[in-house]
Amino acid sequence: MSPPAAVENQSQPSEVLDMASSVSGPLTLDGVKARRAKMKMPAGVAPVCSSDMYKSPACFTKPKAKRWDHIISSESKARQASTLKTAAQYLGNPGLISLGGGLPSPETFPFDNLTLKIPTPPHFTEQETSESGKVLTAGKYDIRNGKSEYDLEVCLNYGQSTGSAQLVRFVTEHTEIVHNPLYSDWQCCLTAGSTSSWEMTLRLFCERGDYIITEEYSFSTAVETALPMGVRAAAVKMDEQGLLPDALDEVLSNWDEAARGARKPFLLYTVPSGQNPTGATQGTERRKAIYKVAQKHDLYIVEDEPYYFLQMQPYKGANTPPDSPPASYDDFLKSLIPSFLSIDVDGRVLRLESFSKVISPGSRVGWIVAAEQIVERYIRHSECSTQNPSGMSQIMLYKLLDEGWGHEGYLDWLINLRMQYTNRRNTMLDACEKYLPTNVASWNPPAAGMFHWIRVDWKQHPAVLEGKTHAEIEEAIFKSAVNEGVLVSRGSWFVADKAVPETDMFFRATFAAAPGDKINEAIKRFGIALKSQFKLE
Amino acid sequence: MSPPAAVENQSQPSEVLDMASSVSGPLTLDGVKARRAKMKMPAGVAPVCSSDMYKSPACFTKPKAKRWDHIISSESKARQASTLKTAAQYLGNPGLISLGGGLPSPETFPFDNLTLKIPTPPHFTEQETSESGKVLTAGKYDIRNGKSEYDLEVCLNYGQSTGSAQLVRFVTEHTEIVHNPLYSDWQCCLTAGSTSSWEMTLRLFCERGDYIITEEYSFSTAVETALPMGVRAAAVKMDEQGLLPDALDEVLSNWDEAARGARKPFLLYTVPSGQNPTGATQGTERRKAIYKVAQKHDLYIVEDEPYYFLQMQPYKGANTPPDSPPASYDDFLKSLIPSFLSIDVDGRVLRLESFSKVISPGSRVGWIVAAEQIVERYIRHSECSTQNPSGMSQIMLYKLLDEGWGHEGYLDWLINLRMQYTNRRNTMLDACEKYLPTNVASWNPPAAGMFHWIRVDWKQHPAVLEGKTHAEIEEAIFKSAVNEGVLVSRGSWFVADKAVPETDMFFRATFAAAPGDKINEAIKRFGIALKSQFKLE
Repeated sequence: MSPPAAVENQSQPSEVLDMASSVSGPLTLDGVKARRAKMKMPAGVAPVCSSDMYKSPACFTKPKAKRWDHIISSESKARQASTLKTAAQYLGNPGLISLGGGLPSPETFPFDNLTLKIPTPPHFTEQETSESGKVLTAGKYDIRNGKSEYDLEVCLNYGQSTGSAQLVRFVTEHTEIVHNPLYSDWQCCLTAGSTSSWEMTLRLFCERGDYIITEEYSFSTAVETALPMGVRAAAVKMDEQGLLPDALDEVLSNWDEAARGARKPFLLYTVPSGQNPTGATQGTERRKAIYKVAQKHDLYIVEDEPYYFLQMQPYKGANTPPDSPPASYDDFLKSLIPSFLSIDVDGRVLRLESFSKVISPGSRVGWIVAAEQIVERYIRHSECSTQNPSGMSQIMLYKLLDEGWGHEGYLDWLINLRMQYTNRRNTMLDACEKYLPTNVASWNPPAAGMFHWIRVDWKQHPAVLEGKTHAEIEEAIFKSAVNEGVLVSRGSWFVADKAVPETDMFFRATFAAAPGDKINEAIKRFGIALKSQFKLE
Repeated sequence: MSPPAAVENQSQPSEVLDMASSVSGPLTLDGVKARRAKMKMPAGVAPVCSSDMYKSPACFTKPKAKRWDHIISSESKARQASTLKTAAQYLGNPGLISLGGGLPSPETFPFDNLTLKIPTPPHFTEQETSESGKVLTAGKYDIRNGKSEYDLEVCLNYGQSTGSAQLVRFVTEHTEIVHNPLYSDWQCCLTAGSTSSWEMTLRLFCERGDYIITEEYSFSTAVETALPMGVRAAAVKMDEQGLLPDALDEVLSNWDEAARGARKPFLLYTVPSGQNPTGATQGTERRKAIYKVAQKHDLYIVEDEPYYFLQMQPYKGANTPPDSPPASYDDFLKSLIPSFLSIDVDGRVLRLESFSKVISPGSRVGWIVAAEQIVERYIRHSECSTQNPSGMSQIMLYKLLDEGWGHEGYLDWLINLRMQYTNRRNTMLDACEKYLPTNVASWNPPAAGMFHWIRVDWKQHPAVLEGKTHAEIEEAIFKSAVNEGVLVSRGSWFVADKAVPETDMFFRATFAAAPGDKINEAIKRFGIALKSQFKLE
């Protein structure tokens, strides 16, 4: 059981405000170095930190977020600041010896150093990394020896629930560079991965008996996280761009509290880019329209965005090579569809960020971005649950992203991933055009993510005449595919509200995992299964 | 947001049972190699595993745990197995290509290798490690290249909520070697640290409105975790050996449901060794007596044991050198007070294990041990929250504990820690005898842990005559100590049930963090503060 971490150093808000008057404009790639030179990394083990230390002064000139007190859950409202942390205020006293905290001494951490071999941008292939990769070392006392801003002494001890200052700095800068929020008091807080932060978000807002709004097909684990808390999903229809604003408006406008036995939903869970399972990506206008409906009904938006940087080059038909990669960082950033966070004027968006799809799921480190009042409640919960994300993960991410690559190198990596995923997606679509019977199978080319969503016109299935149900036919096709040697996911697994009968039938295929030749072979097998099921050959 | 991990391989229960007939006796240090030779490490990314694969056959001949269905919470009962994991059954099909899961390809993990420099037992000092430490390397494809049983390809991807097979094997073997549970169906499951596992344990068992039993002084974060869930603490009196069995019996026997507005408590939270904050350690007979009361009242026991291996050599008075370290592993293991887990015949104990105090808090990896039915519910919750402990932490722990040290080297490390903490504790006690005014300050030498608990006879404080309260005098002493340059923790911070007025007054001082000379100086300052407060000089 971990004691709360000690505080050795605290940022001075006055310093932040002083800087606000001296510089203007949002943080840019070029601006990071100048900005960093003005803000020292807090010293010691588990120093308090916040995004305010790393945001550009321009942020502080914007209006504040609205207040969301009316949708904070009773559980979250009851959270008090940790008793033990009240002692932290004295730790800055010069010469004070602390016998207060329960932090072990770094002598008792049995690691002298850690090294990591990482790719040197833009040479990102495994072979290039093996041949020309850079080796970074983290020693135990690199900070006090002036060798690095982060070290094993700090990362191996307890940390703050915000995450380490070193990584909070990086994700804050990244957030401003990519999203540049429109209100002033946004904050980043590291998480133990988005599965954890979604669970904590539900507990932050929802009471037993509540409904949340989800897409009609949704990430099933997200819904399964809510159900045991007594929180149900009210599903909204989708098209090829995902959630339909009019359908959202309709559900909320016609909400019948008595019939539903629940208050009107106030929380939307959405995956705007490369949605799981449908692969749908909401375009810019779609996002604006959804945001407008959210404002109309005072709906708070949780955008779960693991696939944001898996936005791909446009698909231009079978066997057509992809467009060349974005020519500059600026072009790349402009090519990205604006996030809800970036169009949020009210502070009504909580963004779940993840390294799982772009660096490594095994890190179990992500972050959230939201209004300070929400992030503060999140931190209070973390202190009594995840405590802090793994320090071992944090130093590996810091060495890679900050010391190894910097923001530019990370964008190079993301551009490289974009092209890799484009190629993978194209391989799958080419195979679909080649092997799938288009009289029963249809699809839209996914613009982002890992998933291809194939609609099957099940009404044409011969067993319909025998009175077989949707579920039976879906199972028959699924099993036939397995027999042919390919595993795909059944669309019904992702139905958010099981009380609503499915009219269409879908199968989800991922192009993220298997190599290109296997993707081709797998789709070929799925085609054979479909043809045999539908008696097409 | 993380998809559930795929299953590439599953243990065969029949294999486990076959082995049960061929070997007898619990797993010993010598038996680990023979046992390992018989059980192959499951292959692939995120393979399913369980402790049953790694327990000795002798375990399976024991009686099963009782059933605890009657104390599982409604939230936990509502948890279903993950929909997406139902597809995992097909992954073993030969030649099958999976387009099912959402796992990224290992090519997209930007790490070629990781190295760690660790101490070579028994040369554990930082200087020895720097000079003669061993360097261990983890490559991306070490498993398929036959170089290791664990690698970056596996640890950097999603994993099972049980934790990786590699680390589950180690902690299962360690658990059997140290505790050898008396019932058959115990299981280990890795956690994201004990702060997280305690929160999940509360949600597994408790409903809003419940009381849990705690020690009268308790780890304040543990109580603060429960309160927002609507779960309150019913505190039980302690002496120098911690929780008093008779007082426990009395609280439970006289529980008045109407007066309390709550059903009779069924869950005890206790820190049996080196309790935080009191430093008290329950002796063997004390534990047996508590267990007996638990059986009488059908109380389920959560033993939070981060300090178990910080049991120290006996304190024999000021300036007396400690006894020499245990002469053998066997002597060391026998020197440890039996855990509740090791005397548990009913399966009524959930043990929270931690690496935080013995390896590194930053790992955010611990494990639980409990009856399979409880661990299964815990895993269902993990799948919708922490997902899996950091894979980066897991490979660092695996390299250190399993590949680097093995069980023997880990015990060497723990013996070394025992001596280090003994020296630290002795330094503090020597200083207390030298500097504290014994007419107002008194203490018992702690036998385990990080904490020294100093009783102050506050009734002698001059301000009592002026009508000052307990709280005011405690604050005055605390602030006087801060002014003298030492931070200690106030006993009142740890009062579990704030409705019960404190009669005694305590201050907690840790000997874990500061170096020896600072400990001496800090206690000297505390002595000055006490003398000045009590007008003793």
